Amino acid sequence: MKELRLIGEPVIRKDALEKVTGGAIYGADFKLPGLLWARFYRSPYPHAKIVKIDTTRAKSVPGVRGIVTGADVPYLHGSAVIRDQPFLAMDRVRYVGEPIVGVIAEDVEAAEEAVDSIHVEFEPLVAVLDVFSALEFDAPLIHEAMMEYPRTAAVTPVEGTNICNHLKLRKGDVEKGFRHSDVIIEDTYCVPMIQHAPIETHAATAKCEPNGSVTVWTSTQSPFYIRAEIARALGIPMNRVRIACMRVGGGFGCKHEMRIEHLAVAMALKANLRPVKVVMTREEEFVSALVRMPVHVKIKTGAKEDGTLVAQKVTIHWDTGAYSGWGPLVARNAGCASPGPYVIPNVEVNSLCVYTNKPLGGAFRGLGVPEVAWAHECNLDSVAHQLGIDPLEIRLRNALEEGSISVMGERVFNGGLKESLRRAAEGINWNVRSEGKARGKGIACMYKMTGTPTSSSAIVRLNEDGSVQVLQSAVEMGQGVETVIAQITAEELGIPLERVTLTHVDTEFTPYERSTTSSRATFHTGNAVMAAAADARKQLLQLVAQTWETEPDELDIINGWVVEKEGQRRCVEIGEFWTAGIYSKSQFPIVGRGAFSTVDIFDPIDPETGQSKRPTAFWMYAAQAAEVEVDTETGRVTVVKFAAAHDVGRAINTMTCEQQIEGALVMGMGTTLFEELLLENGRVTNPNFVDYKIPTSMDVPGEIKTFFVETFHPEGPYGAKGLGEPGLAATAPAIGNAIYNAVGIRIKDLPITPDKVLKALKERG
Amino acid sequence: MKELRLIGEPVIRKDALEKVTGGAIYGADFKLPGLLWARFYRSPYPHAKIVKIDTTRAKSVPGVRGIVTGADVPYLHGSAVIRDQPFLAMDRVRYVGEPIVGVIAEDVEAAEEAVDSIHVEFEPLVAVLDVFSALEFDAPLIHEAMMEYPRTAAVTPVEGTNICNHLKLRKGDVEKGFRHSDVIIEDTYCVPMIQHAPIETHAATAKCEPNGSVTVWTSTQSPFYIRAEIARALGIPMNRVRIACMRVGGGFGCKHEMRIEHLAVAMALKANLRPVKVVMTREEEFVSALVRMPVHVKIKTGAKEDGTLVAQKVTIHWDTGAYSGWGPLVARNAGCASPGPYVIPNVEVNSLCVYTNKPLGGAFRGLGVPEVAWAHECNLDSVAHQLGIDPLEIRLRNALEEGSISVMGERVFNGGLKESLRRAAEGINWNVRSEGKARGKGIACMYKMTGTPTSSSAIVRLNEDGSVQVLQSAVEMGQGVETVIAQITAEELGIPLERVTLTHVDTEFTPYERSTTSSRATFHTGNAVMAAAADARKQLLQLVAQTWETEPDELDIINGWVVEKEGQRRCVEIGEFWTAGIYSKSQFPIVGRGAFSTVDIFDPIDPETGQSKRPTAFWMYAAQAAEVEVDTETGRVTVVKFAAAHDVGRAINTMTCEQQIEGALVMGMGTTLFEELLLENGRVTNPNFVDYKIPTSMDVPGEIKTFFVETFHPEGPYGAKGLGEPGLAATAPAIGNAIYNAVGIRIKDLPITPDKVLKALKERG
Repeated sequence: MKELRLIGEPVIRKDALEKVTGGAIYGADFKLPGLLWARFYRSPYPHAKIVKIDTTRAKSVPGVRGIVTGADVPYLHGSAVIRDQPFLAMDRVRYVGEPIVGVIAEDVEAAEEAVDSIHVEFEPLVAVLDVFSALEFDAPLIHEAMMEYPRTAAVTPVEGTNICNHLKLRKGDVEKGFRHSDVIIEDTYCVPMIQHAPIETHAATAKCEPNGSVTVWTSTQSPFYIRAEIARALGIPMNRVRIACMRVGGGFGCKHEMRIEHLAVAMALKANLRPVKVVMTREEEFVSALVRMPVHVKIKTGAKEDGTLVAQKVTIHWDTGAYSGWGPLVARNAGCASPGPYVIPNVEVNSLCVYTNKPLGGAFRGLGVPEVAWAHECNLDSVAHQLGIDPLEIRLRNALEEGSISVMGERVFNGGLKESLRRAAEGINWNVRSEGKARGKGIACMYKMTGTPTSSSAIVRLNEDGSVQVLQSAVEMGQGVETVIAQITAEELGIPLERVTLTHVDTEFTPYERSTTSSRATFHTGNAVMAAAADARKQLLQLVAQTWETEPDELDIINGWVVEKEGQRRCVEIGEFWTAGIYSKSQFPIVGRGAFSTVDIFDPIDPETGQSKRPTAFWMYAAQAAEVEVDTETGRVTVVKFAAAHDVGRAINTMTCEQQIEGALVMGMGTTLFEELLLENGRVTNPNFVDYKIPTSMDVPGEIKTFFVETFHPEGPYGAKGLGEPGLAATAPAIGNAIYNAVGIRIKDLPITPDKVLKALKERG
Repeated sequence: MKELRLIGEPVIRKDALEKVTGGAIYGADFKLPGLLWARFYRSPYPHAKIVKIDTTRAKSVPGVRGIVTGADVPYLHGSAVIRDQPFLAMDRVRYVGEPIVGVIAEDVEAAEEAVDSIHVEFEPLVAVLDVFSALEFDAPLIHEAMMEYPRTAAVTPVEGTNICNHLKLRKGDVEKGFRHSDVIIEDTYCVPMIQHAPIETHAATAKCEPNGSVTVWTSTQSPFYIRAEIARALGIPMNRVRIACMRVGGGFGCKHEMRIEHLAVAMALKANLRPVKVVMTREEEFVSALVRMPVHVKIKTGAKEDGTLVAQKVTIHWDTGAYSGWGPLVARNAGCASPGPYVIPNVEVNSLCVYTNKPLGGAFRGLGVPEVAWAHECNLDSVAHQLGIDPLEIRLRNALEEGSISVMGERVFNGGLKESLRRAAEGINWNVRSEGKARGKGIACMYKMTGTPTSSSAIVRLNEDGSVQVLQSAVEMGQGVETVIAQITAEELGIPLERVTLTHVDTEFTPYERSTTSSRATFHTGNAVMAAAADARKQLLQLVAQTWETEPDELDIINGWVVEKEGQRRCVEIGEFWTAGIYSKSQFPIVGRGAFSTVDIFDPIDPETGQSKRPTAFWMYAAQAAEVEVDTETGRVTVVKFAAAHDVGRAINTMTCEQQIEGALVMGMGTTLFEELLLENGRVTNPNFVDYKIPTSMDVPGEIKTFFVETFHPEGPYGAKGLGEPGLAATAPAIGNAIYNAVGIRIKDLPITPDKVLKALKERG
């Protein structure tokens, strides 16, 4: 194999300097001359008919330039899943915080004053505030027209109910499996509604042009997705919609779906060609951006005495709130992964996504897998304890490995799970009993698909001086993709890293990318960029070969020099092509293009059984182990040590890989120990960082060890696959299991707050 | 030949709506948050040493954020010709208006106040204010280091003089030719200093980034040229320099060279990462942007009795002012074309470009050809009159045609000159004597090369819905190139025109383009876009063929539908690729790329003789005829009728072609009848539109007829070549010759003002 210069190295982020110096332009930083601001009148009811809207007083507020209601923008969008969302509520509101009227004004203050003077008359309707009451026989239907909405083939709504998707996974005979089990453990694990809590709230600016084009400057993870949504909603071709990406101050899935761009566009359509900016307050971010769906996972596992898993039945209720968004796909994705990364011959999963009159649930880092991992990993721990088997041992006995057949029917390849389990366990000295009375150790693992099929494309432009501009549309949002893409480009072209610049991401210029989600960018965009760089390299060597009257095969590129491997051993610096007369043969700078798609490898998932020979481009596998100390006086749980071992395929940038895992892990600690959105009658009661706690640097474990298990995925760039999400998924159950190990209590509802711990300790006696 | 849908049609401009509604963003419209403004202290002397700069008072003006002098930005640039220009004057100033100190401030007023309080002590030097005194034996050298400046091989400075380029054209034996001539006419024709007078003055905004990158938002004709200049001057790679093009409110050559971007960059380098904007006042535009060089053309022509041309000697003195800019290339280009488009066996041309202490001369629509055409066409008219031959007849007798050998030694192909002469003459009823006593008719013709070798590139991106984004870098500045590029793209791809959008031009995103100058865009960029569209089309047909299990050859694209020509006659709308499952084979939108270069066809011009078998990608040929009326009381000349016949190769957009010709013609009338920059001791005394007149709609001739002579250039897209410049070149001599025909006077110095006419009438008696 060719020696690599830049792959597997701890390369410093390309975006570091810009960000630490304050030079980065985020969504809320963006300004244009003549900018107007918009604010929204939002629903105070979880479910109500809109009887009358009175904006008379609002119109007379000085500085107000326009008032927009649903009737002005009668468009539906729906995240490419189910098109059920209006730009602004039309005749009805379905959750507290739903925007009803938008006010455009010269400044925020005028817009807010006008919003405060709007009067809307409502006729309250019965609200559905719980996923189980939503399924009752006589529950009000939140979307009577559900079956009529355009939707993707990947979802299966259930007519006449509030169920907008029902995922089924069927393998073997689950009832027979339970009959043959020596032990059966059934439990229900719950996860509350939480929010992504990005540092940067949603912010977008939109502007219409005289010819009907519209541009949106926004901090989105998925500009092409937003472009398609807007074009489809407005009924205009995509070349009339431009999404220019600003820096993203935290995405985690909430900036994948269209949660603010449609509002900016709705306002811009009525703003007389002036740009309009919309920035969510923190409260709006909590109540009307996007949340992680609350979920109930009922899980029943049957095993033999030796720990071999025989059967598993999982029933999941996801509460997607008033509009579906990506909820149905979360239900699908996590449903498929809900039995965990094990060989289980008999499986039945029902994963239901349900409408309620609550804030919108959708994509959140891990796409449902952290929630189901919380269930299956705690449940498996219970099985192990019941059987008196070591929790590591039971996992190693059942874990998927090369050649295993998964619950989806796929033959496993490139599976580094067992190695990950061993490394994570070693990382906290698994076999050494914790010292101190209330200390314990826990381990958990996970697996997750990446979205498939999808595609990516890239353009590599060589400048006249041999420096390079890469046009691609994976969005840097802290995960380090810009640096990885630059490394791949420089490695493939054989040029120094500092010669490579990634352009801004902008649908007007940069080529198609499905989205920056699903831990997919390094694998997919990386492959597209590799292809584009290889294409540029080929043209470059052809040019030199033509001038030197030799063959491209006789040449190589080493650190910016084209060299002749044998013969005359001539060489030329790429920056000297003009002066060296190389360009005189064909005087144009080189444009390389590349694309990558997983369409050809994808085997469609059977809608009745969830079976597929190849459901995903790659599976991510990870194991994490925690050592905790429980304060039995206060109930407070402290994570003392954490070890994470991830099958990353190949770590292209060891520094950013480590940061990704650590970041996910700390985020996971927040979801495990603190975070929960509290609702009263559909209204969020803690929409601020005083009442809703996220982890700070003070909460980071004293010791975090990360291990890369490099399995070299055969289709990944240099063997790489993704790793953005797994770190979150294995965190909660590792902590939960460690608490059980420490003090013998099992908390089943996240977050594991001190009061729950104290209560459980008391019950334990 | 395939039937064309969109080529040769009067398609309405793509940029029309944006411009008439005020939506277009020009250089001066561009704003960024935190914008600072810069103004400059400029030299009051044409030539002086800078002894001391005192900015003490300036620094204390409230709002001032920085003071920049030449010592702060010790960089040289030079339009890729001769690198002789400092960003700001260092130890010496060379013309009145040269920037010496820049002030950065929160607003223009503060910057101006600070500039007014700067005190600079000078030691005046002897100024060279005339091209002939610059050549005197003891003339001061304006650039002692001339021979040490880096320069292009295309120019030949003369050591120890102020001559920065000497172009030689030699063919046959000119002295022998004169000996064999029956008639010899020698005259000197002069053209004054004029200005491009764009509606939009030069405006640029620059901003530095923490990593040393710099972005310039500017209305330039030649973004890649500016990028290369800045990167080279600052010594940074090109991927660190971004030139984002704003709309251009008139270019005509003055926005090809770097005349403001370096000032904006110089200020931005000292602005603490804040953006700095520089907008020239109208006075600055006149004195320090760029001018058309004043020139003296001495021309001596020998002919046989029957009008056959035998010999011609031309000596041209170009006054390029204090810095060379594109002056040397003007001298070269126009020198080559100075004998006119005729077969002349014996030729000697000396074209000298000379430094003086005057405003900078450089590129101006036609690159010197209008100036030399003024000379050779009036001179030829004199030969005809002397011999008693009709002026049309003498041109037809000597004009280049298919197979002729030109004065440069090239065998002519694709030459529509004779047809153009006939059509122009017919257009004003040449053979019918003008009615009215002081009316007369004149005819003139011209030819001009396009810059060669150069190259262009383009990317055609197909969106998911079949609409298209074209990435290319030809700049729309009123000439209609955006519309032509869209037509070519839509034609090649077989899709409706409204599905095609051109992106903004921006070196960060759009691929390499040499420049939008030299009437080159339709031919060069057009070819690159054709190739990119053909590449996209090929991929598109392959995709469909793969899905339908047929061959690409069996398919065609008609108005947005891919159709099977024979067999099952299946069809699919391009926008329906996703739903029709076409993309399921290889699910990525298509990227086509194309490039075009004239390197391979170019035969380098011999520096001693100017001979070349192929000096240019194409020659433009045009003939224009005017009928004028001279008011013998006032001396005022009125152009009654004008006919223009242009060999355009092929008119891709008949409407914009007509507009281009009419625009050039009216601009030419201004240069013929009104325009002249007046200088006193090196200082321009009429730098405003009150004292410097350009034509208005009131000056447009009552009748303008345009004819396209379509010769179908074999290498042009659909046969097209350029036509941006010729309309200017044949205007002045057509009018001058018509005046002679009307009242028997020959004015040799432009502009033909009433006082010159009256004086000549008086002398005629």
